[in-house]
Amino acid sequence: MSAGATQDADLQRLIAELLVVRASGHLADHQRRYPRWELTNSELQALLEAGVGGVILLGGSSAELALRTGQLQHWADGRPLLLCADVEEGVGQRFEGASWLVPPLALGRLHRHSPEGALRLAERYGHCTGREARAVGLNWVLAPVCDVNNNPANPVINVRAWGEDPATAGALAAAFTRGLQAEGVLGCAKHFPGHGDTDSDSHLELPVLPHSRSRLEAVELPPFRDAIAAGVAAVMTAHLGLPALDPDRPATLSPAVLSGLLRQELGFAGLVVTDALVMEAIAGRYGAGEAAVLALEAGADLVLMPADARAAINAIAEAVAEGRLERGRLEASVARRRAALAGLPRLGRTAADAGQAAGADGGLARKLVSATLEIRGRILPPEAGGSGVNLIRLDQALQAPFLPAAAPAITVAAAAGFRPCLLAGDTISPWSDDPQAPLALERLGEGPVLVQLFVRGNPFRGHAGGSEPWPAALGQLLKAGRLAGLVVYGSPYLWDELRELLPPGLPAGHSPGQMPLAQEEVLAGLGLGAGARYRSKAIAAAAAGFTD
Amino acid sequence: MSAGATQDADLQRLIAELLVVRASGHLADHQRRYPRWELTNSELQALLEAGVGGVILLGGSSAELALRTGQLQHWADGRPLLLCADVEEGVGQRFEGASWLVPPLALGRLHRHSPEGALRLAERYGHCTGREARAVGLNWVLAPVCDVNNNPANPVINVRAWGEDPATAGALAAAFTRGLQAEGVLGCAKHFPGHGDTDSDSHLELPVLPHSRSRLEAVELPPFRDAIAAGVAAVMTAHLGLPALDPDRPATLSPAVLSGLLRQELGFAGLVVTDALVMEAIAGRYGAGEAAVLALEAGADLVLMPADARAAINAIAEAVAEGRLERGRLEASVARRRAALAGLPRLGRTAADAGQAAGADGGLARKLVSATLEIRGRILPPEAGGSGVNLIRLDQALQAPFLPAAAPAITVAAAAGFRPCLLAGDTISPWSDDPQAPLALERLGEGPVLVQLFVRGNPFRGHAGGSEPWPAALGQLLKAGRLAGLVVYGSPYLWDELRELLPPGLPAGHSPGQMPLAQEEVLAGLGLGAGARYRSKAIAAAAAGFTD
Repeated sequence: MSAGATQDADLQRLIAELLVVRASGHLADHQRRYPRWELTNSELQALLEAGVGGVILLGGSSAELALRTGQLQHWADGRPLLLCADVEEGVGQRFEGASWLVPPLALGRLHRHSPEGALRLAERYGHCTGREARAVGLNWVLAPVCDVNNNPANPVINVRAWGEDPATAGALAAAFTRGLQAEGVLGCAKHFPGHGDTDSDSHLELPVLPHSRSRLEAVELPPFRDAIAAGVAAVMTAHLGLPALDPDRPATLSPAVLSGLLRQELGFAGLVVTDALVMEAIAGRYGAGEAAVLALEAGADLVLMPADARAAINAIAEAVAEGRLERGRLEASVARRRAALAGLPRLGRTAADAGQAAGADGGLARKLVSATLEIRGRILPPEAGGSGVNLIRLDQALQAPFLPAAAPAITVAAAAGFRPCLLAGDTISPWSDDPQAPLALERLGEGPVLVQLFVRGNPFRGHAGGSEPWPAALGQLLKAGRLAGLVVYGSPYLWDELRELLPPGLPAGHSPGQMPLAQEEVLAGLGLGAGARYRSKAIAAAAAGFTD
Repeated sequence: MSAGATQDADLQRLIAELLVVRASGHLADHQRRYPRWELTNSELQALLEAGVGGVILLGGSSAELALRTGQLQHWADGRPLLLCADVEEGVGQRFEGASWLVPPLALGRLHRHSPEGALRLAERYGHCTGREARAVGLNWVLAPVCDVNNNPANPVINVRAWGEDPATAGALAAAFTRGLQAEGVLGCAKHFPGHGDTDSDSHLELPVLPHSRSRLEAVELPPFRDAIAAGVAAVMTAHLGLPALDPDRPATLSPAVLSGLLRQELGFAGLVVTDALVMEAIAGRYGAGEAAVLALEAGADLVLMPADARAAINAIAEAVAEGRLERGRLEASVARRRAALAGLPRLGRTAADAGQAAGADGGLARKLVSATLEIRGRILPPEAGGSGVNLIRLDQALQAPFLPAAAPAITVAAAAGFRPCLLAGDTISPWSDDPQAPLALERLGEGPVLVQLFVRGNPFRGHAGGSEPWPAALGQLLKAGRLAGLVVYGSPYLWDELRELLPPGLPAGHSPGQMPLAQEEVLAGLGLGAGARYRSKAIAAAAAGFTD
């Protein structure tokens, strides 16, 4: 082998170390939920053997993930990997079995009335996430979201933010970061320089922030400064246009934003990682290889989810050969990556320990729900012998991990006599053409109607449920004397709006969380559940599904 | 401690060994899907320490189950446990990640045209199930179903049976048993003396079979004779009234059926296990303790899912003290249990091996789908720029493990231009009051309609989808010129009925399987999918859910 070829192979490994590729948290290829985005095991194993330095994981239970992270580490032949996931709302948000916590904005709201309490809970939130992440083999948590959600119509950040004003968001994100990193995992403040004031979704198109530098200084930047002051290990860039800072390139690819603003002005010395380069706003516009080159040129250390890992490695190697990128620049990023990993305690649990350790902090999950819910009145079950409708609004019936068949929102309501009726983007329409009476009531059946709305900002939706005529629909049910109660799970904005429209005596509740624990607590607060659950034999049998 | 107390403690442990209790396959208590039926870990650990001899598991992925079975074995302090599950259609039917196979009746149908091929596949089916069961730590598979499904309206057996006539059911069940047990796990022929000719569900009420002894000899018993001749390790009793054999007691509790017919006449020397005693037909009538006593009195060795394990142990101990049950009778059952376990190779895989080993036989799953599907014609996607409706019929939208959001029935059809519209017991009704035009078409939206029906007999439903007006609905769509195609997943009876009503050129298909693999193969056969999947950017993005 010639010296040139050896050098080339070394360079390829050097570059590979800066990539973070996407994989399923499941063990087997056929379990992948998104085969288009998730590498097969043979591709993954080959990339890890070629020196790829990180993997972002999604899908599978926490027990499976513990096995999976061990498998990846094994394929990497002992080289320590960065193993990360978007666990912004507890490890249980993405990996079943661990703690699933209310969204950060719940604490942002609590902070208005009880700043000290909210700060303490944010730090516990970080500890819980960090401890469980380590238990399942993750060493890098892609949180906190440091965006200030000052735009209620934001379809992608919304309740993922820690606050609606810079001071709250910064204080809570910093508290979270301290708790998280004290557990021996890395954090990641995102999405720099601030994705809170957009009303479009960068998963689908490139949002543009028209703000001046002074406005950024006043609103967007403070939480990042706070997280950096708290020692956050990494910062993730946003796929945003910021013409005031860089008229040509989105933040992710902008030297002015990454090197100028983040490194020099804010003095951040940790890891800079791009948001997923496969996202349409970047991949569609620059191509798989060139996007990765531009990101490193701009000042990023790590390239997350390149649309094509091999193409990215080759394009970066070519950019070094052409003199566009200096090898020393890449070496500095590798050194920064290794230093971050070197500071962590070694992951060494067995998979079985992990499965049991994860989810052990159930107390915090319940405490967070209790501290942030709102309740008024008690729901009256349908008259004896009668039944009512449990009208449940979701984005997609087939994509609702918070709503297993035995979820309290279903079973508790059923035990009280409300039969479930799902309304979602993938079910039959409930809407008539009459704006004054938008619900086609004849499609729902008879009886009082308990309305449970699961609405929050979610990536890829392009909206936060705001286009549906719920104010008019509730008015219609009230007028017909059929509204038994209202629960909003998720969006505080929708809750604020609808609450005002209800007569004072009408039973209603809200939790910022959508998970089963939130359903249980809200419904119990409204007088349903606990002993009442499974009151009916038929429901108990239907819910059981035991041996046949 | 007095001799009497010691003896009593010994007796309690002896009895405990004959119990098989129910647990979730998940590791943590809060992950249990059916807390009413599934013991908590502390209850479970206490019962195993008290000597309980078996656990039936449901829920969780195969990787989790591998961890879980190790945990249970650990709690039992080295005493070998019977660890079982209702994996009648491959381990993947109950535990995600392993092979999910077409229902047995698919091979029963294939057997009409290709008896040798069907027998070979049934034996591989057994091998695959046995190998994967061992890999996840199960040593007892509660299959084959030996019931003859000669009643198409049977709501609970249906496609779970291996045949619609005694000879087919017997030959295939025996072939399955040979393959299964060759892998070092125990099988279980069920539900003795035959649950095929009922049109009610013993999960909900006690069905009565009015047949004479000679009729039983001709139809119900032969498959059990065949499975016994093949060496099946266990037989499970049915919760059925059989007045011709026992005018007083259901089969599960009948000395005439268990001791007379099964042991003496059929000469079965293996393990006799009850069906779940918690089922309403038994527990509701006899009580938790008395039902267990009656089952052992009748001749059962093992008591499955007593409604209350402690109550069952105490009631049995009391029955011994009172002389109703002989201690020697229980000792003989314990000896039979230990002999069955002693014949098995030791389970010794690590959890990580198990996760990877399970699901390794994907080839068989696909082969079974291909060998048993039926296809005619090619579906035309909606005109360019237009879109159509993908009308998907399910029992319950929230209880459809075969239909994850990225299932081919959704994504392949979406890529071809058909937007999903779910119709289920828990969604908004699609039905009008007009029997000639039963679909309220205005609720579905515009465009051609691809109809995909997921219908099969399922426990706890009380029907097999037969009450919905699909013949008239298809006629209505045909008349409107809007029927793009029909697929039936599951019931061969519904397919037989609907196929006859369609004009010859209309694209239509059927698989006895409902799992994603079956969807993929049927839709590919009808000209959709493969390269076409994820053709649309919006769908790809929506399906992706990657890092945000």
